[in-house]
Amino acid sequence: MQEGLHQEKELREKGVADPQIHQMREHLYNKNITTIWDIQDAYDADYFGLKDRCPFGSYGLCCRNCDMGPCRLLSEEMPEHVKAVSPGLNRSGCGKTKDSMVASMYLQTVIRGVSSHIGHAFHILRCFSKVAKGEISSYSIKDERKLKSVALNLGIRVEGKGKLEIAEEISEAAWDDLSGRQNEKPMRFAMALAPKNIEKLKDAKLVPTQGVAESIIQGVHSTAQGNTNSLFGLLHHSLFLAALDIVSLYISTELQDILFGSPSPKTSEIGLNVLKKDMVNIVVHGHLPLLSEKVVELAPGFKKDAEAAGAKGVNVVGICCSGNEILMRQGVPLAGSTIMQELVIGTGLVEAICVDVQCIYPSLSAIKKEFHTKLITTMPEGRMEGEQFIHFKEEEANEAAVKIIQEAISAYRNRNINKSFLPSTAPQTLVAGFSVESFMDILSKLDSKNPLFPLIDLIKSGGIKGVALLVGCLSPKVQTDMSHVSIAKEMIKNNVLVLATGCAATACGRHGLLNSQASKYAGLSLRKVLETLGEKAGLGMSLPPVLHFGSCVDNSRAVILASALADALGASLDQLPIVVSAAEQAVEKATAIYLGAAALGFTTHIGVVPKLGGSPFAVKVLTEDLEKISGGKIIIEVDPLGAARKMLEVIYSKRKNLGI
Amino acid sequence: MQEGLHQEKELREKGVADPQIHQMREHLYNKNITTIWDIQDAYDADYFGLKDRCPFGSYGLCCRNCDMGPCRLLSEEMPEHVKAVSPGLNRSGCGKTKDSMVASMYLQTVIRGVSSHIGHAFHILRCFSKVAKGEISSYSIKDERKLKSVALNLGIRVEGKGKLEIAEEISEAAWDDLSGRQNEKPMRFAMALAPKNIEKLKDAKLVPTQGVAESIIQGVHSTAQGNTNSLFGLLHHSLFLAALDIVSLYISTELQDILFGSPSPKTSEIGLNVLKKDMVNIVVHGHLPLLSEKVVELAPGFKKDAEAAGAKGVNVVGICCSGNEILMRQGVPLAGSTIMQELVIGTGLVEAICVDVQCIYPSLSAIKKEFHTKLITTMPEGRMEGEQFIHFKEEEANEAAVKIIQEAISAYRNRNINKSFLPSTAPQTLVAGFSVESFMDILSKLDSKNPLFPLIDLIKSGGIKGVALLVGCLSPKVQTDMSHVSIAKEMIKNNVLVLATGCAATACGRHGLLNSQASKYAGLSLRKVLETLGEKAGLGMSLPPVLHFGSCVDNSRAVILASALADALGASLDQLPIVVSAAEQAVEKATAIYLGAAALGFTTHIGVVPKLGGSPFAVKVLTEDLEKISGGKIIIEVDPLGAARKMLEVIYSKRKNLGI
Repeated sequence: MQEGLHQEKELREKGVADPQIHQMREHLYNKNITTIWDIQDAYDADYFGLKDRCPFGSYGLCCRNCDMGPCRLLSEEMPEHVKAVSPGLNRSGCGKTKDSMVASMYLQTVIRGVSSHIGHAFHILRCFSKVAKGEISSYSIKDERKLKSVALNLGIRVEGKGKLEIAEEISEAAWDDLSGRQNEKPMRFAMALAPKNIEKLKDAKLVPTQGVAESIIQGVHSTAQGNTNSLFGLLHHSLFLAALDIVSLYISTELQDILFGSPSPKTSEIGLNVLKKDMVNIVVHGHLPLLSEKVVELAPGFKKDAEAAGAKGVNVVGICCSGNEILMRQGVPLAGSTIMQELVIGTGLVEAICVDVQCIYPSLSAIKKEFHTKLITTMPEGRMEGEQFIHFKEEEANEAAVKIIQEAISAYRNRNINKSFLPSTAPQTLVAGFSVESFMDILSKLDSKNPLFPLIDLIKSGGIKGVALLVGCLSPKVQTDMSHVSIAKEMIKNNVLVLATGCAATACGRHGLLNSQASKYAGLSLRKVLETLGEKAGLGMSLPPVLHFGSCVDNSRAVILASALADALGASLDQLPIVVSAAEQAVEKATAIYLGAAALGFTTHIGVVPKLGGSPFAVKVLTEDLEKISGGKIIIEVDPLGAARKMLEVIYSKRKNLGI
Repeated sequence: MQEGLHQEKELREKGVADPQIHQMREHLYNKNITTIWDIQDAYDADYFGLKDRCPFGSYGLCCRNCDMGPCRLLSEEMPEHVKAVSPGLNRSGCGKTKDSMVASMYLQTVIRGVSSHIGHAFHILRCFSKVAKGEISSYSIKDERKLKSVALNLGIRVEGKGKLEIAEEISEAAWDDLSGRQNEKPMRFAMALAPKNIEKLKDAKLVPTQGVAESIIQGVHSTAQGNTNSLFGLLHHSLFLAALDIVSLYISTELQDILFGSPSPKTSEIGLNVLKKDMVNIVVHGHLPLLSEKVVELAPGFKKDAEAAGAKGVNVVGICCSGNEILMRQGVPLAGSTIMQELVIGTGLVEAICVDVQCIYPSLSAIKKEFHTKLITTMPEGRMEGEQFIHFKEEEANEAAVKIIQEAISAYRNRNINKSFLPSTAPQTLVAGFSVESFMDILSKLDSKNPLFPLIDLIKSGGIKGVALLVGCLSPKVQTDMSHVSIAKEMIKNNVLVLATGCAATACGRHGLLNSQASKYAGLSLRKVLETLGEKAGLGMSLPPVLHFGSCVDNSRAVILASALADALGASLDQLPIVVSAAEQAVEKATAIYLGAAALGFTTHIGVVPKLGGSPFAVKVLTEDLEKISGGKIIIEVDPLGAARKMLEVIYSKRKNLGI
């Protein structure tokens, strides 16, 4: 634990790697505007570590659950100055041990992550249901092919049924899964997502069951004072909910594809310079395509209004996963990764940033005060004190989007160009929009009947040694971006195909790994595969060695692909040469995702020290014992190259066990 | 905030007031067995306060939600030695302000409380549903009068329907409320519980709506990183969920009454000496009567087995709310309040302590190792590492109870009487089993047609000045018991009738306030009322001045009574001369309950400093502004006499406003 914290510090001492972040941060620092890296610096300021992040919290040995506390327990590993001012207790007032305190806090973290994803799924499902019932006209079923394939995967017959009828049956299946009464039946979407062989998961009682909402309440209940202190019980419930989290991502992805279309590859750009000095800039931020799609759809209609305000038009760009959603489907450029949201406003060129839910830093409120920028909140879960709230309801989606665009245009008049700043860096070109469907379309150029066969052949022959899925956030606790980027480069160098989602993908994008030229970083055999695929697909260039597989909820796409591979190879998920890395995990959703991946059987790396250090037993369960249970496990490794090495070893050993 | 913490310390320096606690604690201390008070002492050990409970946590200014943290913010009020080692930040890494951090942590606390109560309701409802469907035979409908009155309150017609049919309709109403799809409709049980006049609550959007499970998930979602930082939004959701909490209590109480019978007054005892030296002692502990009722029902059948093991029989006693449930309905004695659970095992006379959920200290595992005691867990949410687990399912309730009793009898052989210890104090006599029904039965002796009228007359005339409901836990942070006991005495002295539930009731019980003799503490007019009622009811003695109104979920009983009073007076809840006090609130459920009471319109006192100090704004909303919203408010006052004075003032002012 102490070693990991030390390694983190060494990494962040290297400084931010992306020059645009560096320039913007300097610019804002000089204007006394604080960013996320400054906050981290404040904890690092003291040489003796007295002002460090709290060791009790870092070790998971702090409990503020109830009004008898807060309680803090001591780990022998903690620094001497901490020991000196600690009551030196081994248990809380109620008697929680270190093991149960750590595991209970961890379960709470997982629950916040899962609840966020379930919340996302509820928003999408509610809209989808209304479309299916013909209750709203602002959204429709855009992708009938997807509608039918989702239905078939759920065992819903489609012959002779209209699309709304099919949609309603899909919607009922999702409602049963999410908010039905708890029962022992597997979630229908879980069975649609899973490969044939899930014996291990069944034995381990890790198959997500219907009545998700009640399972979450049961989890919360377990962590309240005076309930379970079983380390294994708490970790098992964490794993169960995390597995369920992946299924909830899948529900969102599938319904979003039906409503907005399945993504297909398109070229776009990423970087602060996608903001235009002569246009009304609207940034969409958050996670739900419900809002961002509408703003993108309606913005072009306001060119004249923008011109009347003195601008050349309306420029919509994205950030975070709302950004990824419209990048994947509409090719809309990204202003940056989530961790750059403060910088985006700091350019002074943003008229409106409209946000829905998740990963929206409350600091935006403070920063936008320095500029003319409007911060428009749209969902109750994402309200900000003192900021405008345009309640985004499906029924009035168009009206809300129009209002947002108009607000932005009216703000343009207040823009002070002298206060604006853009770094000297040009945006990076990237290709995004990969999905199982679009990837299969490419592979079908090699074998139109069985598009999966060429991929399996490539994996078997070693042309592709394996697949690494990079997921999750960026962190100021390490050298921001570089844990992902270093791992991505190391994997492709060793002929491992990399899929990336969310901020992992956008970091790779800013560092030039999401375009054809990046294939130069790939090992010989992978490079050849990428060139062949690019050529056969008629792209006229190599595929990128890192495939942008979408937003964070789209991690489910990689699992769909993995399930298909498992079935084709007659294997279970844990036998595949696939690894997952959340190298800079930050938000609770990342915990749910990385743990969910491990619960499903994947070896999963994390690169920021988790708050588990207070319980070596909990660490052992997740990093060792889990392998005997689900076949997956967690690798905790701060050093990116060390992490890559460990993941490559896992891939080689899985290949060996498969006899390939 | 600092003053409150100082007052707490002054109170606890007075030492524990109940001699049996004092003696048992000394005994265990000498045997090196740590109890909850020793843990508190460890934080107090250092004169300079360096080893105190963490100030950041105590102020609500610590956030460990995500892997970017933990983050801690500074309050200018904190002691100098804390400031010296603090990075001195005003916001977290993600930009959370002090206000939103405090409010977000508070919402999380409320959510754990509500989820516990919803979890309780789900357990009872699942059993009730199975009874209604005729799927299980181990439970049945014991109270048909209650069945019908619950149905009528829900607007369910009962004519011509069989009892199972009625039960099934009630069960469906509860399922819709708890796990149905979220909608804008008020919970059916909420409308059954509420008085006619709920305009204020409607305006404030505090009427609990159906689809509780989704509301909780939405709440959890809101507190995850990057979601709402609206102080008012977070506090409103806290209030909304807390109001909903009271309704969930009501669901549990009503269904429990139908299954196990509505309580009626009975005399019993409380104290460690209800454990018998010559019997097999089984302690039931937790909250669900599902388990405790079965153990009580079946234990007498094992007299011969107990005799064969050398004992005179099986002695079942209760602790915590499982104990209260069987005390209320069966007159089973209580070994003590929840905070004494370690002491109960420490007597060395307990063969088995069987627990279900909530308020079960994990320290029991450590303590029972010193003795022959078996700790038997029965519910997944309450599992303990390394302890026996007999999964208590409704279908196999009898089998589970039998197994528990047998385990206890077999443990008797291992009892080492030389290791046993009982304090020199005799148990206190108490009367318990008050409920709206039984209270009305007494009042009907005065007016058989309109039993509420005499009570209203008494309140109007000032014979009873008002009603105080004492709820919630006992705390080692103050002088355990005495915040409740002092307040109770002060209230009855001033002719305020006191109702008490949960640990507030059991504390009053141990200090002799739950029996007729205690009417000597009552003011003249109240004493006369109690004597008259006792005589008219044919009890041959005065009613106790503190009426034991049941377990913590039974707080709903007091709300039912209040609603009836409100309707009879043509008032809303906030206009009534009723106050609520959670003078030693500890667990999260207590937070849900006291906040729920305030959300419904009651002035509600808490006597332990809540973790709100980091946001004077949050404190102001709850202690002042709320009054303009729901009509209720929170009084934070550590000093019990000061608190009583403030509550009396509220009662007088409400009387004045009502013109009585």
